[in-house]
Amino acid sequence: MSQFEILSTDPHCAARRGILHLAHGAVQTPAFMPVGTAGAVKGVVPSLLAETATEIILANTYHLMLRPGVDAVERIGGLHRLMAWDRPILTDSGGYQVFSLSGLTRIDDEGVEFASHIDGARVHLNAEIATDIQHRLGADIIMCFDECTPFPVDPSRLETAVRRTIDWARRCKHEFSVLSSQLSAHNRQPTTDDRQLLFGIVQGGIDPELRRRCAGQIVEIAFDGYAIGGLSVGEGHDNMVRTVELTAPLLPHERPRYLMGVGMPLDILAAVRAGVDMFDCVLPTRNGRNAFAFTEQGPLRLRNSVHGDSTEPVELGCDCYGCRHFTRGAIRHFFNSGEMLGPILLSLHNLRFYQRLMANIREHIERGDFEAWATGEMQRYAWTDNQ
Amino acid sequence: MSQFEILSTDPHCAARRGILHLAHGAVQTPAFMPVGTAGAVKGVVPSLLAETATEIILANTYHLMLRPGVDAVERIGGLHRLMAWDRPILTDSGGYQVFSLSGLTRIDDEGVEFASHIDGARVHLNAEIATDIQHRLGADIIMCFDECTPFPVDPSRLETAVRRTIDWARRCKHEFSVLSSQLSAHNRQPTTDDRQLLFGIVQGGIDPELRRRCAGQIVEIAFDGYAIGGLSVGEGHDNMVRTVELTAPLLPHERPRYLMGVGMPLDILAAVRAGVDMFDCVLPTRNGRNAFAFTEQGPLRLRNSVHGDSTEPVELGCDCYGCRHFTRGAIRHFFNSGEMLGPILLSLHNLRFYQRLMANIREHIERGDFEAWATGEMQRYAWTDNQ
Repeated sequence: MSQFEILSTDPHCAARRGILHLAHGAVQTPAFMPVGTAGAVKGVVPSLLAETATEIILANTYHLMLRPGVDAVERIGGLHRLMAWDRPILTDSGGYQVFSLSGLTRIDDEGVEFASHIDGARVHLNAEIATDIQHRLGADIIMCFDECTPFPVDPSRLETAVRRTIDWARRCKHEFSVLSSQLSAHNRQPTTDDRQLLFGIVQGGIDPELRRRCAGQIVEIAFDGYAIGGLSVGEGHDNMVRTVELTAPLLPHERPRYLMGVGMPLDILAAVRAGVDMFDCVLPTRNGRNAFAFTEQGPLRLRNSVHGDSTEPVELGCDCYGCRHFTRGAIRHFFNSGEMLGPILLSLHNLRFYQRLMANIREHIERGDFEAWATGEMQRYAWTDNQ
Repeated sequence: MSQFEILSTDPHCAARRGILHLAHGAVQTPAFMPVGTAGAVKGVVPSLLAETATEIILANTYHLMLRPGVDAVERIGGLHRLMAWDRPILTDSGGYQVFSLSGLTRIDDEGVEFASHIDGARVHLNAEIATDIQHRLGADIIMCFDECTPFPVDPSRLETAVRRTIDWARRCKHEFSVLSSQLSAHNRQPTTDDRQLLFGIVQGGIDPELRRRCAGQIVEIAFDGYAIGGLSVGEGHDNMVRTVELTAPLLPHERPRYLMGVGMPLDILAAVRAGVDMFDCVLPTRNGRNAFAFTEQGPLRLRNSVHGDSTEPVELGCDCYGCRHFTRGAIRHFFNSGEMLGPILLSLHNLRFYQRLMANIREHIERGDFEAWATGEMQRYAWTDNQ
């Protein structure tokens, strides 16, 4: 069985409805992955996370390698055991955080050296190390180490980043093959379904030529799936969509496509239309912690005094844990009083909102009316344009 | 049916096993009440709280009257709706917090005036107001407004506090009758089972003579249940136990007895032996937030590096949510990383530990071997002597 089955495609756009078969279970696509940065989706216990209909989560290699460290994760029994999550997990390579969070002290074709944002310790990371760490963490999907550039960026820096990303992807693939063959040599040959998948990443900012060149090279190396990286870094919705619409068709039809770090509902709808299958974003949980709720009727800011006496749920008709049990008035009170229940309940609501959006997207692709439906939904979520 | 049924008593001590029938359900006694200070048991959603075998929780009138305010609680639909907890709730009167948290600006026989610890607003509280507020919050059990003294305390101040506590108890009882008859006049006569219960409180520090006098007077006023207040304020385990052993037998056998704000497992065992039926304490949740776990084998401090690689649960054999799913190593990592899951999981564990202790206590009273069993358990929990 192929790891990725495409069940149906929309007749009027590039949207696809599929199933991704991974070592820890199947994932219905298009899929949204909540972010469990340091080994926990903030404030959300796994049983309540599962109730949001989440099937796969993302964890950050950068955070985990610094604390508790890959040795500790291995001794605890691996990332799934640490997180108490027995369904699929994807780890990123650490590249994005190295360039955004750490004090970068060296970057060249070999790799990077940076100062940990936790204790300033000097850390070395490159294609081989990032692959090895992710292999040991044991996620279902692991990512190539890439160079992620900010926006805007100097053209020559962008070109160098693309060149390195391609070179590092080749080294990641090689290292991954070595690790996999060591596994075989130890008589621990995994079956098709329980081996890790390695995804390549396409960089290139919003430069069409660089995206084309990078996609061509990455596809030539051949990976289990392909990510579009380096977006949602300040380029705005229109640039993002244009780049995704250009890049997605350059990636093999039969492999899953993952748009990294995106995004708002509007972004997701546009990217699904362009043929993207997977998404991750901190917005549902981060905004939830900040008293911001996503709803089909628009955004709600739960600290607003207008909700003080409200006996309504955050979103009428929502079946999330918070909406089933708590009033807006209660949740506002929790935020005002610094009670953890505020962030907990709104994180759950926002995750459920995102998973319901994904379920609706999948349903409309199956029905063949995604393009028309999505056009209406994009009007509804125009306010989620972060530009 | 009486509100309080005594099912059995231990042949060798004053311990009793009972059921308290309240408006929102039955409570098995001896019972432990987790504290939901501001309308939430910190970090614990109601479904997971119920899983700890909690049957009744305590909420603080002082906190709720200041924020969100009793009007807001009423508009939201009452305290049960605010907390999304459809089982029994007890509210304290606010007295304890007025004397410990607020800036007290006036205290006399009429009542108190204080500055809110939140915004400094001047607030007036007395027997009538405290009763009225609690009546409106709608808890199953409400408490008389009392004057709680610190330890040590000047004898004349203690005597004044006892005199006021008795006087205020009489006024609370009267106010409660007026409110109940207004209810009847509005044709909303509650049945025996769904009316609120009012508990009287015995004060008197560790002075035997004052405790006797106060108990006698409070019992004469006649309440649905009786609390022993003013303990666990620094007097130490031995003074506390001596005072409880003196006071409990002065309270009517057929009414529930509640030891306020107590305590450590050792304290609870000693007080049950003296005939106490109900307890509340912030320790399981507060300690849980501080990475401290109660276990039958002794205390665990989960920030300790010794737990870094541990694949064991916090307590072997524990069926709490955290112990069923997470390793000590993972929980230590969550505390080190500032992840909310650390406080959440240890609060749940400690609450489950307390409820399991109470279930064991009840079982041994039923069997008639509580006295002998408790003597052994008190050795085991000697470390929980807070002196």
